[in-house]
Amino acid sequence: MKKDISLEKETIMNVAATLFGEKGYAATSVRDIARDLDVSVATIYYYFKNKEDLLFTIIDSIGNDLYGLLKKSIEEFSDPLERLRHMLLGHICLAHQKKNEVKVYVEEQVNLSKKYRSIIYKQHRNIYDTYINQLEELKKLKLVRFEQLPVAAFAMFGMANWCYRWFKEDGGIPIEEAAQILADIFFHGILNPGVSSPSVLKERSPSAKK
Amino acid sequence: MKKDISLEKETIMNVAATLFGEKGYAATSVRDIARDLDVSVATIYYYFKNKEDLLFTIIDSIGNDLYGLLKKSIEEFSDPLERLRHMLLGHICLAHQKKNEVKVYVEEQVNLSKKYRSIIYKQHRNIYDTYINQLEELKKLKLVRFEQLPVAAFAMFGMANWCYRWFKEDGGIPIEEAAQILADIFFHGILNPGVSSPSVLKERSPSAKK
Repeated sequence: MKKDISLEKETIMNVAATLFGEKGYAATSVRDIARDLDVSVATIYYYFKNKEDLLFTIIDSIGNDLYGLLKKSIEEFSDPLERLRHMLLGHICLAHQKKNEVKVYVEEQVNLSKKYRSIIYKQHRNIYDTYINQLEELKKLKLVRFEQLPVAAFAMFGMANWCYRWFKEDGGIPIEEAAQILADIFFHGILNPGVSSPSVLKERSPSAKK
Repeated sequence: MKKDISLEKETIMNVAATLFGEKGYAATSVRDIARDLDVSVATIYYYFKNKEDLLFTIIDSIGNDLYGLLKKSIEEFSDPLERLRHMLLGHICLAHQKKNEVKVYVEEQVNLSKKYRSIIYKQHRNIYDTYINQLEELKKLKLVRFEQLPVAAFAMFGMANWCYRWFKEDGGIPIEEAAQILADIFFHGILNPGVSSPSVLKERSPSAKK
């Protein structure tokens, strides 16, 4: 039977992200990853040039997942408030579902060489611009209570990305509920008094597909 | 002239935090730190048992700074809303003023052995409990719009701690203004409609002492 190449590549990335998250990138060898997967070191080098290439691929991939999810929300929702709320809920649920990858994204970028870092920087810029565009649309509609949209965007990044550090499955509430509370805090925080953010998304949040 | 021992120790910690932030803990040697400071390696080993001890001291110290700042706000303010706002403003300004240390706190804890990690974990727990106590006080006063106070606490941690990743001195607004906007987002986000958080703190924020 022919091996599913992309599945094998993905499995290597998952295990590597877990080990990088637990022990740190520097303390994890390609041999450690191979041992955990019960494959040869050569199998890993078949898919990745070296350990840095593997790190880059993990970071690039979680960034692409997020960017894809944001673009999907933009296609799917015409109401700008509903759209931004959907983007944020998806972002939070992704940050939980892929928490090892997000930990690596946040904590291990320092180990990438300049060439790789500049690719990740551009990707991050695209994600940031996507959010800022949405906030500007709300601003034009006079829904937002202040001028400094970048501060609002980074408040949101902080709230969403921080989830990898604290959210626990056994903490009493599911991630979908935590995401709704975080979104409520954010929208009540940025919107003018009296503007309410739609809460109709509970049933159709991307997190429901988990 | 007798050297100021604590100043020399602090200088080593500052330079180490900068290098750990730029290159990562694993890629920075004690020799690199000594070279940057133009001191001997022995000088560093006079103050720190080893590189891990230096990492631990940086992380422990920034945690203590934050905890001290929170306790000072508690002593200083009797109004619970004003108190929590002051805590958050101080937290944000500290996260900016000591951004290298916060980066190390967030990104390099993985390199600490269990013994050290458990000390940092207890310290983090104290900080978390301090914030939760304040939120519970607001909840008792029926000022907060939802039940899940831990989610609010982590929203705040995310917003405040994330500053080390994005805030730039030349970004158009000073940190004190960004901190006020972040605090506004947080308080409008968690408080019941009609409850307004005091904005009288602009003149007496700890950041003004910078």
